[in-house]
Amino acid sequence: MSVSTAFAPAPADAVPAPLPVLGRDVSVPLVTGGEAGYAALDYAASAPALQRVWDDVAAYAPYYGSVHRGAGHLSQLSTELFENARRTVAEFLHCRDDDQVVFTRSTTDSLNLLARALPAGCEVYVFETEHHAALLPWREADVTFLDAPRSPEGAVRTLERALAGRDTARPALVCVTGASNVTGEVWPVRELAAAAHASGARIVLDAAQLVPHQAVSVRELDVDWIAFSGHKLYAPFGSGVLAGRADWLSAAEPYLAGGGASRTVARRADGSVEVEWHEGAARHEAGSPNVIGAYSIASACRALAEAGPETLAARERHLLGLLRAGLAEVPEVRVLSLFGDDAPRVGVLSFVVDGWNSSHLAAALSAEYGIGVRDGLFCAHPLVHALLGTNTAEQAGCGTGSLNAVRVSFGAGTPDEHITRFVTALRELVTQGARWTYRTENGRCVPES
Amino acid sequence: MSVSTAFAPAPADAVPAPLPVLGRDVSVPLVTGGEAGYAALDYAASAPALQRVWDDVAAYAPYYGSVHRGAGHLSQLSTELFENARRTVAEFLHCRDDDQVVFTRSTTDSLNLLARALPAGCEVYVFETEHHAALLPWREADVTFLDAPRSPEGAVRTLERALAGRDTARPALVCVTGASNVTGEVWPVRELAAAAHASGARIVLDAAQLVPHQAVSVRELDVDWIAFSGHKLYAPFGSGVLAGRADWLSAAEPYLAGGGASRTVARRADGSVEVEWHEGAARHEAGSPNVIGAYSIASACRALAEAGPETLAARERHLLGLLRAGLAEVPEVRVLSLFGDDAPRVGVLSFVVDGWNSSHLAAALSAEYGIGVRDGLFCAHPLVHALLGTNTAEQAGCGTGSLNAVRVSFGAGTPDEHITRFVTALRELVTQGARWTYRTENGRCVPES
Repeated sequence: MSVSTAFAPAPADAVPAPLPVLGRDVSVPLVTGGEAGYAALDYAASAPALQRVWDDVAAYAPYYGSVHRGAGHLSQLSTELFENARRTVAEFLHCRDDDQVVFTRSTTDSLNLLARALPAGCEVYVFETEHHAALLPWREADVTFLDAPRSPEGAVRTLERALAGRDTARPALVCVTGASNVTGEVWPVRELAAAAHASGARIVLDAAQLVPHQAVSVRELDVDWIAFSGHKLYAPFGSGVLAGRADWLSAAEPYLAGGGASRTVARRADGSVEVEWHEGAARHEAGSPNVIGAYSIASACRALAEAGPETLAARERHLLGLLRAGLAEVPEVRVLSLFGDDAPRVGVLSFVVDGWNSSHLAAALSAEYGIGVRDGLFCAHPLVHALLGTNTAEQAGCGTGSLNAVRVSFGAGTPDEHITRFVTALRELVTQGARWTYRTENGRCVPES
Repeated sequence: MSVSTAFAPAPADAVPAPLPVLGRDVSVPLVTGGEAGYAALDYAASAPALQRVWDDVAAYAPYYGSVHRGAGHLSQLSTELFENARRTVAEFLHCRDDDQVVFTRSTTDSLNLLARALPAGCEVYVFETEHHAALLPWREADVTFLDAPRSPEGAVRTLERALAGRDTARPALVCVTGASNVTGEVWPVRELAAAAHASGARIVLDAAQLVPHQAVSVRELDVDWIAFSGHKLYAPFGSGVLAGRADWLSAAEPYLAGGGASRTVARRADGSVEVEWHEGAARHEAGSPNVIGAYSIASACRALAEAGPETLAARERHLLGLLRAGLAEVPEVRVLSLFGDDAPRVGVLSFVVDGWNSSHLAAALSAEYGIGVRDGLFCAHPLVHALLGTNTAEQAGCGTGSLNAVRVSFGAGTPDEHITRFVTALRELVTQGARWTYRTENGRCVPES
């Protein structure tokens, strides 16, 4: 594998510092004795809270109160905070003036909400390379799964071909990722949006892996909806976002039925019940809102905007350079990629190592080096199967032969040392083998005790 | 209104102290000058976090990590914490050994999940007196709404009559509240469960207003499912619970489609996608779990169990005694009740005052006394209409005449002073009038600035 100069580390004095995150001082025990600072390299699953987000939540927590109809001072304060959080998110995403921001629990929840708001007869187009959260929610739609493309241009051509000649009188939705949760590769969202709109389709952007790494503009990308999760955006308090066009959402049945979504409820003379539902975001937010979750997302948006997207991206390019340079020195490593080495990617990278079961490798990185990565198929089975040339369930435990992969992912809180320790550890493991023995337990690979 | 001796305050030396909660030292400005300690009397909407819960969350937060497939130490720790939280909840609720605990976002979400898991052709029986979260989710079922009963025995008779002669070959579900979110009155859950089971129906308990106030045993009450919210149980971090029988949940389509719920996903030769879903709780928990939310609920369960349900109930009876004695001195007050003065109730009480619009009263309690109550119809419109003898939308703003009510609710963190200040304030407002003037703004009653 050759390393292009695009991945060469920037000069040290030009590299911005990481942002403070919770857990940066946590040490974990090593099976080989002693302990190590925990290197959290699973940001793509869930990122640590920014210290700033935690501080905001901690400062607010004593003022927490019931929102909406509460008459007390803290209820009014909390309601204001909650509704302001929508505006902060809308600004962060550069939404259009009439876009709606609905607070959900996660990207998965956001896409399931949109799936339930599709107009009757809607077609859905989705690449097989998507995360299951984007692949599976369209249970009542007429879904076309698109083959994995091998270049960004190929993705656009594949979509154009699929949409060509479709009955444009039918509503249609394209669902596409902003950055792959497996390869970290950035998808040509603007071009895909143009292709969708050219055939009268709409498009939703799964930005779960994009917003933590790059400035994202709904206006510039011209996507109809965008979905992301707080727990990947340094705000792990149980909230996510679906933002975008109001019309389909306003026309749909409420996502959840209950208080908050209902404006009036009355018995009819025949004993049945008549409901008038709210419009706007409240329609799909029945139940007491997760105020702390929404507030934490707004806090993260503010913190990232203030740190500067370009500064954060420069730091991430630096880390990616360190990582790729280190991996290039281990010839047994095969980095997974759809679009090739030079394609732009965020701080997410998956690989396999010849002769190693990925679960074994991940277990050794944790037990012997204090490094937390992820092994598996990353809730994107068809993509990983396509990349590995396999088509079976992942292999559990420590057996040899690898039907799954290791993923390294990082972000705004990652210090250089986590990356350099990882590449050193990987080289040692691959060249010298693990120092400890491991066994399979409940399908996981764990150190022998 | 007479006050029965059941509500007489206990001797002061026998009264347990409140549990420490966040916000107990928060002061808010008064429109009449100065400030007052905030009296949070809207626990039924959302309770403050127990200090203990907050401390647990704060201690855990640096150790937060991605759950389930993460190989790192903090991922394993977080997974263990998350799965242990289920067991803590199951013990707290005295679940049966084979019951499932599913983490949701709230009671509303829990009941919507159960609604989507009903077998085909299922009948649902629900009293019109329920919260909208229990009244409305059964959108695809054959729902029978039952008239408001006027005694606990009447509730059982009403249900028995409704179930009599039903086709017992059809699956059926009864949904019933444990304690009303409007009147605070406790419902005869065990007797209703017996009636349901006698006719081959199942029963789900909406325990949102019950678990914060009383020990609840799924086994003793013999309910098939129970639902509650973290934010009413001193754990406002975006999680709720549905616990109970596994069979309907295992047979149902996953609540959300996505990662975590899917065991394997593969393309078929025809281009479509084949999914094998998980069984167990994971089936309905797609997306990254809200670990902090689940952990905070487990923390609250432990704290309440350790404080002792009987101790907490004794304190609450004491507060209820103070409240009822105070209200009895204001003859203009009419307490809302289905079951009469002597019926057992939790720390939730709603009332109207002759000659006062409830919104005006709530606004004055907040602005002039720093007391946070709630006014409105409490997401239980048919019940409040039945209690008030009205059948129109609530009246917004400060106008005279009251088509809605004021609700006072409290719990484990409430000091005596909040209740005594409330009854003093109410008496002053009713006998002397508000000291400030109020106007209607966006449908709310607010102090003139």
